[in-house]
Amino acid sequence: MALTRREVKELSELTQKKHRDETQKFLVEGIRLVGEAVNSDFKVLEALYTPDLLDTPTGRSTVQLLKKKTSQVHQVTAREMELISETVTFQGVVAVVKQKRFSLDSLLENANGQSVLVAFDGVSDPGNAGSMIRSCDWFGVDGILMGLNSVEVYNPKVVRATMGGLFHLPIVEGVDLLSTLSTARAAGYKVYVTDVGGEVHFDRVRYDSKSILVFGNEAWGVTDQVKQLADVRLAIRRYGAAESLNVGVACGVILSTLHRLYDE
Amino acid sequence: MALTRREVKELSELTQKKHRDETQKFLVEGIRLVGEAVNSDFKVLEALYTPDLLDTPTGRSTVQLLKKKTSQVHQVTAREMELISETVTFQGVVAVVKQKRFSLDSLLENANGQSVLVAFDGVSDPGNAGSMIRSCDWFGVDGILMGLNSVEVYNPKVVRATMGGLFHLPIVEGVDLLSTLSTARAAGYKVYVTDVGGEVHFDRVRYDSKSILVFGNEAWGVTDQVKQLADVRLAIRRYGAAESLNVGVACGVILSTLHRLYDE
Repeated sequence: MALTRREVKELSELTQKKHRDETQKFLVEGIRLVGEAVNSDFKVLEALYTPDLLDTPTGRSTVQLLKKKTSQVHQVTAREMELISETVTFQGVVAVVKQKRFSLDSLLENANGQSVLVAFDGVSDPGNAGSMIRSCDWFGVDGILMGLNSVEVYNPKVVRATMGGLFHLPIVEGVDLLSTLSTARAAGYKVYVTDVGGEVHFDRVRYDSKSILVFGNEAWGVTDQVKQLADVRLAIRRYGAAESLNVGVACGVILSTLHRLYDE
Repeated sequence: MALTRREVKELSELTQKKHRDETQKFLVEGIRLVGEAVNSDFKVLEALYTPDLLDTPTGRSTVQLLKKKTSQVHQVTAREMELISETVTFQGVVAVVKQKRFSLDSLLENANGQSVLVAFDGVSDPGNAGSMIRSCDWFGVDGILMGLNSVEVYNPKVVRATMGGLFHLPIVEGVDLLSTLSTARAAGYKVYVTDVGGEVHFDRVRYDSKSILVFGNEAWGVTDQVKQLADVRLAIRRYGAAESLNVGVACGVILSTLHRLYDE
């Protein structure tokens, strides 16, 4: 069943935040990520593929999977795909997925008593945010709080850089970090803020079983107001001449020590 | 002194690898990076700025610095700057810098007996390579070996993502890693290769005083041939559902444990 010109236009508009917000949909591109979407508990509303996808076994099985998951699977031309897709090297398949809202309260009230959350305080580069979600996924973080001034998780560049991470752990967007961190502390969470001038070397910390780790903006770091809510200010000691570390790298470095508590 | 149209064209061509290779020059953009270039032992050949740069004290002192360093400082129009510059949000100043060749032999024959090098085996994303150079700079790595199949260090996106790192430590490009790693091992280096299937958890390693740490391509990791030269295959244990970590993050995580040897 071919798409009308209007339908193609509507889909291509999902590359813009405004339209994603309005429709509560987002785009997922490429065999690997579409596969992740299909196997997650996100709802795949629609999928589009170009004929050449059927040339490979993986491509064919992706289309079969999609047809099981949704009745709206359309073959489109390369030209139409180009209009809809955001990537330069498009991979012949795009899924339209329903956005998911997670509850902040249920994230904070994690039942098993052990909960490590990560908060983004103004992380603005899509590549950084995506790679941080991917790292949170790798290191088994229980959930992510995206501050009001952080990049949108359904931005196609963020989605791509998560490498599927956004399908694996709850992410709450538009979080007012000041009030949320206060509430969390009252509920027994310890707040760890990364800060170039922090007094505790990351490698010396044993995290509390209820922890929130806060990472800041690429240029100015964590805001002063949020820093004031910190129980611990973490720093990564410098041995060379660089002025700072990339925030995605800093996040990975700090998360890599999370599990020592349980290992040793 | 205004630039001729031909001069503007020649400068704009430095955004292409072919022309960078031919002329052995590269572009550095923005107040911060240009400042780093001027204060490094790289040779600044020429600099261009738009009039609005003179509106700020930092901008004015940058122009003064440049005038001390080179006689070729030109004011250009915003339109000309746009043609020359690669960044979307250009910052009003660009320096043309001479590329620098470091000797592989002198890097390996580090005199003080203690030497930690990092090798890139096919790292292809400019943002990743740049952030890895930045991390190497932060953690005090002694030098970088860029394998034949890795992205070019003078690519503007790499330069930008290094945040000045490329001015702080020697980087050798076009390295044949197979022969170089063999030579290095014969000279007493231990080779540590990152490998998702590696048998040693990164956190358990104490690095040799002469070490080379190898990081691989975004999609397929370190090549099998290079893996065969490894003394140790390092892995970062996974606790969640992600398939892999971003290579820039993995690099930072592994480098963050380098100095434990000396600390504890």
